[in-house]
Amino acid sequence: MDGGGVDGYGMKMVRNRKVVLRRYVTAGYPTVDDMEVVSSTVMPRVPLGTMAPAVMVKNIYLSCDPWMRGRMTKHDDATAEIAEDFVLGEAMVNFGVSKVVDSTHPVFAAGDLVWGLCGWEEYSLITQPETLHKINHPDLPLSYYTGVLGVTGLTAYAAFFEVGKPKKGETVFVSAASGAVGQIVGQLAKIAGCYVVGSAGSDEKVTLLKTKFGFHDAFNYKKEGNDLTGALRRCFPDGIDIYFDNVGGATLDAALVNMRRGGRVVVCGMISQYNLQEPEGVHNVIQILSKTIRVEGFAVFNHFGLYPMFEDEMARYLKEGKVTVLQDVVKGIEKASEALIGMFSGRNVGKLLVAVADE
Amino acid sequence: MDGGGVDGYGMKMVRNRKVVLRRYVTAGYPTVDDMEVVSSTVMPRVPLGTMAPAVMVKNIYLSCDPWMRGRMTKHDDATAEIAEDFVLGEAMVNFGVSKVVDSTHPVFAAGDLVWGLCGWEEYSLITQPETLHKINHPDLPLSYYTGVLGVTGLTAYAAFFEVGKPKKGETVFVSAASGAVGQIVGQLAKIAGCYVVGSAGSDEKVTLLKTKFGFHDAFNYKKEGNDLTGALRRCFPDGIDIYFDNVGGATLDAALVNMRRGGRVVVCGMISQYNLQEPEGVHNVIQILSKTIRVEGFAVFNHFGLYPMFEDEMARYLKEGKVTVLQDVVKGIEKASEALIGMFSGRNVGKLLVAVADE
Repeated sequence: MDGGGVDGYGMKMVRNRKVVLRRYVTAGYPTVDDMEVVSSTVMPRVPLGTMAPAVMVKNIYLSCDPWMRGRMTKHDDATAEIAEDFVLGEAMVNFGVSKVVDSTHPVFAAGDLVWGLCGWEEYSLITQPETLHKINHPDLPLSYYTGVLGVTGLTAYAAFFEVGKPKKGETVFVSAASGAVGQIVGQLAKIAGCYVVGSAGSDEKVTLLKTKFGFHDAFNYKKEGNDLTGALRRCFPDGIDIYFDNVGGATLDAALVNMRRGGRVVVCGMISQYNLQEPEGVHNVIQILSKTIRVEGFAVFNHFGLYPMFEDEMARYLKEGKVTVLQDVVKGIEKASEALIGMFSGRNVGKLLVAVADE
Repeated sequence: MDGGGVDGYGMKMVRNRKVVLRRYVTAGYPTVDDMEVVSSTVMPRVPLGTMAPAVMVKNIYLSCDPWMRGRMTKHDDATAEIAEDFVLGEAMVNFGVSKVVDSTHPVFAAGDLVWGLCGWEEYSLITQPETLHKINHPDLPLSYYTGVLGVTGLTAYAAFFEVGKPKKGETVFVSAASGAVGQIVGQLAKIAGCYVVGSAGSDEKVTLLKTKFGFHDAFNYKKEGNDLTGALRRCFPDGIDIYFDNVGGATLDAALVNMRRGGRVVVCGMISQYNLQEPEGVHNVIQILSKTIRVEGFAVFNHFGLYPMFEDEMARYLKEGKVTVLQDVVKGIEKASEALIGMFSGRNVGKLLVAVADE
């Protein structure tokens, strides 16, 4: 099967490069050496004899997301985690946009454009095709389905509306606001009639928030010394109704102090904590009691039922120009690990993805 | 008005001792010296010329509650607090059971038994009679209206059912479980078909939990060294669905590690933190994200609408013997401050109240 160029059915084998995890990351930032690109070949069809319906896809765009960090560490109690640890030596897994090249599943046919979970590789055999979604708005950029029209957008939408439960006129603070989820949350908050302020880690990102994404205000948290509490008090003299947390740690602590009574903290990410050996403590949890705050963790996997409604609503916002998107597209699967690592130190601006094939 | 024994209307002035706060407590435990009993006299009727309807009550039982600690400190931003700071030199305020001695309000008449907010004093003029509740089950012990049939019971009931949202078969952990709220929560959890474990600070209290209050299991947290996480793992090998938090701090931290996915933390009290100058950090907040936990602060003041339904339901449980109560009754207003202070160090067992007059 491996070395030959043609299989027994006359079909040509193709090259299939994969990004695999070489070793589990114990603490701190992952490095490029933790991953490697390995090359093999694959027959681009569902293997004969595959019992359950399956789909072979050629991957076009791979999404880079902060939550991949958790899967790069070995967990003793994997059941406690949202997603399983990556398997060493196998392609890492995340969401992507792909074209179906072969299918034994009645819903999908060769040529269909889909998005869903796939390997960090050029071709993926999808053995659970029910996790794939057909792309219903091909008039919008295909890459959007790794982001604003995919899990990133659904995350922003479901977390903000279902957990945050915004009311018109409320105040919203978004951390890592220029990030993939943050930039969408800010724009949804404006659509919902809220006052929205974002934080980010560079002046360039702050400018983007105030111009491209229309945040009412924004600040560079690295310029506030250790007084994030003061920065938030300046931005929200009457307090915060919803804190959309993408970072955790000191920012969460400062937000708690500035929450209004009955406020909601949507815990969507804690990127400041993912690479620490010991987590920072959060000291102002008593505010949860004194202001009857609700702090709620969000996992998009509980909200996929919303996707069809979300896809149509978000596609409309995009077409109407109410939501705009900034992508950071890296070309070539050989650049994928470097891109992922850059994301953890905030190097990218906007939604990070890797283009691994032409559309 | 002050010195005489009889006023212009022929009514006798009566002695009115009050417990007043002498100075605000800055940090640490309050001491007996922070309060004093002052004696004055009062005419036991609604003063003539009082414009709005008002009620004069003779207080019978005063409730001691942990949340009084917050009101003994001066807050710069009082609006951020659930209740106002106590006023120096005036009677401290909390819930109590009283008898109406005079009323200009159509709903109340002399002789009525009521419960509601009153001063820590022998006679109180209630200028907002809408905060008073008539006592509808006088066949049960009157003192229960400071506890299981009053705010304590409503707190346990509303926090557990409205915020905790228990389902049959779920696991529940209650800290400070032998305390006024905890003992009721444990019994409600059993009524709801949950498995319930409590923690307390002495072997005597642990025995009470397992015998009198019917907890499935209980442990003395002081005997677990610093391994509360291990203690909870032992008690809940499959994890905790609902943590009813009365203490905060290290116990909250340990509970977070042991929560199941989709778990709820009802933050009802943080008594371990009230007397600290700097709060302890909570280090495992990332669990909120990885297990999509909801952590929600509770304030009974948002749930008074439930009271009539609650009163009837709880009265039924008490009469059926499904809920049992342990009270710690201190006699005499001159003992009130000492009793309150003892509560912060866990000296009392069960619901603490002060009897200031015969029924």
